[in-house]
Amino acid sequence: MSRFWSNTTKNITPYVPGEQPKNKSLIKLNTNENPYPPSPRVLEALRSYALSDVKLYPEPESDTLREAVAEFYGISKDLVFPGNGSDEVLAFLYQAFFNRDDLIAFPDITYSFYPVYSKLYDIPYREIPLRDDFTIDFEAYPQDLKAIIFANPNAPTGIAITLEEIEKLLQQRPNTLIVVDEAYVDFGAESAVPLINRYDNLLVIQTLSKSRALAGMRIGLAFGCRELIMGFERIKNSFNSYTMDRLAQTAGIAAFRDKAWFDENRYKIMKTREAVKAELRAMGAAVTESMSNFLFASIPGVKGSDALALFREEGILVRNFKSPARIADWLRISVGTDEQMARVLEVVKKIMERTPNQ
Amino acid sequence: MSRFWSNTTKNITPYVPGEQPKNKSLIKLNTNENPYPPSPRVLEALRSYALSDVKLYPEPESDTLREAVAEFYGISKDLVFPGNGSDEVLAFLYQAFFNRDDLIAFPDITYSFYPVYSKLYDIPYREIPLRDDFTIDFEAYPQDLKAIIFANPNAPTGIAITLEEIEKLLQQRPNTLIVVDEAYVDFGAESAVPLINRYDNLLVIQTLSKSRALAGMRIGLAFGCRELIMGFERIKNSFNSYTMDRLAQTAGIAAFRDKAWFDENRYKIMKTREAVKAELRAMGAAVTESMSNFLFASIPGVKGSDALALFREEGILVRNFKSPARIADWLRISVGTDEQMARVLEVVKKIMERTPNQ
Repeated sequence: MSRFWSNTTKNITPYVPGEQPKNKSLIKLNTNENPYPPSPRVLEALRSYALSDVKLYPEPESDTLREAVAEFYGISKDLVFPGNGSDEVLAFLYQAFFNRDDLIAFPDITYSFYPVYSKLYDIPYREIPLRDDFTIDFEAYPQDLKAIIFANPNAPTGIAITLEEIEKLLQQRPNTLIVVDEAYVDFGAESAVPLINRYDNLLVIQTLSKSRALAGMRIGLAFGCRELIMGFERIKNSFNSYTMDRLAQTAGIAAFRDKAWFDENRYKIMKTREAVKAELRAMGAAVTESMSNFLFASIPGVKGSDALALFREEGILVRNFKSPARIADWLRISVGTDEQMARVLEVVKKIMERTPNQ
Repeated sequence: MSRFWSNTTKNITPYVPGEQPKNKSLIKLNTNENPYPPSPRVLEALRSYALSDVKLYPEPESDTLREAVAEFYGISKDLVFPGNGSDEVLAFLYQAFFNRDDLIAFPDITYSFYPVYSKLYDIPYREIPLRDDFTIDFEAYPQDLKAIIFANPNAPTGIAITLEEIEKLLQQRPNTLIVVDEAYVDFGAESAVPLINRYDNLLVIQTLSKSRALAGMRIGLAFGCRELIMGFERIKNSFNSYTMDRLAQTAGIAAFRDKAWFDENRYKIMKTREAVKAELRAMGAAVTESMSNFLFASIPGVKGSDALALFREEGILVRNFKSPARIADWLRISVGTDEQMARVLEVVKKIMERTPNQ
């Protein structure tokens, strides 16, 4: 520790992302990346970019990217805020809207970066337990919250809620900011973006890392009414004038302009997911009704840490979360190609065969 | 304003960067970009990048980039922290090292983002006037400071201080973090990076936007002892697991591996700067002894805002800072190509000819 560290630096426990192995022969199903390359239009846009322009600063407000996203959703570009990955957008969310005397809440089982941001910005928070079936119990949330944050579909459970449920929440809690993190929404859930024109207490967060296959380019988005988006802009412009480089903006623009690739890719992944889900259940594994690009599964009689190690021995990286304790024996397995998932099923079979109390 | 805005969002005045015009026929000398494209090795690295890999997250700690930078400077890679532009690195600096009851200080005339960060993170600060000749008066800084931040060469004056002065400061104030922002150091000043192994109270900040011609790729660096770099890492990993995308890292790596281009480019810009500096002085303008890739000049009898407007009429963007008042009649003019600078001299001549009290 340095005597110069701030209290925040001393006290914080940083988020730990899934491993990014240098060994490329491993089957990487631990960070929910897309197993397929991005749209050929994205590759072409990057390949044909006039690279000598990188000497100049990028568009500070990413206007062209905002336009492409807005056109995709049929909304105004002023209702879109792009950032350097949805992680950056989420970090700005905390600073733009929460004070040190506000209380916010999110599920006890969800994206584990939410409590880290709370500690980074010193925002009091409560983690509200999911029901036993891993669904969100909004009735259990206190009334006087500044914000409720949740992922839809939720992570790492993959379970989605309906737009009706979200709309009910927006109406019941007009003074609470409802933040819907839609990192995985394109794999079978319904986006709340069309509701932003009707509710000024709604913020939707998205990423291009999953359904657009651009994890390596770091592009995230917020959607909300104009005043909420202005909040993001004020913080961003007090933090970094240019958060997105020229090539990231170029990739994002091309991605939103290729709806055909987008639909084809996500349906392919959903199809693989459903097939593997059915096979795992047939083998006796517990599997949630995931609407995302990952499966959340538990092999009866096998500890999560053991299963993780056995997968790794077989050259497959998956993810296991030690806390809370009730998900410690579950694995989050990203949906890869059909070939990769066939290997996953083989490994599950192998693990089950050598488990005596099966 | 939204009822959901935090106090920070309500109260802050965001930084305003120089204009990024869509009209490409303007001569753009307002944001200190490099007038030349980056190293051909950078262009080649981007062109030959295996683009389908952008589906995968980038290296979270940018290890390969750290190695390339460390090799350039002959230091350990653990003493280098890369970020999404030096603006992001500076923002992390405030959060990693300053508390709300610390006092920090910087010159009254310097990079005008420093007070914005102070307000963003609620860190008390003092702006200490430069001497009349625009040099930094370290004797005037209070004794009990958590940090002193300054740019070397300073902006927008371009005036540099020696390594001896910096070393004296480090020795005189062992409990004050000395932060040297070297955005412009490669154009004639001496880097303090070699001192990081000897002083645990030194942090050096650099950018690839100026001397590496990569403003569009957003790459910044911090250098310091291991404990200080760990402070940056803890904050970054609580903010965004992956702050630099794959192509930004690729560009940065190639840039640091091409020392020949780097030296050729910066000497060319320095040569242009010195020639224009001499011409402006011969014409009667006041010009500081800039060691950066910009000139800081004042045309006698001409108001800064008028000069700015006259340049713009002639199709040239330069920058003028309204405050503090004693630099309101000065212009910051980025060093462009020789052809662009010939146009600058023509415009200065024209302005002087039509100024009656010349």
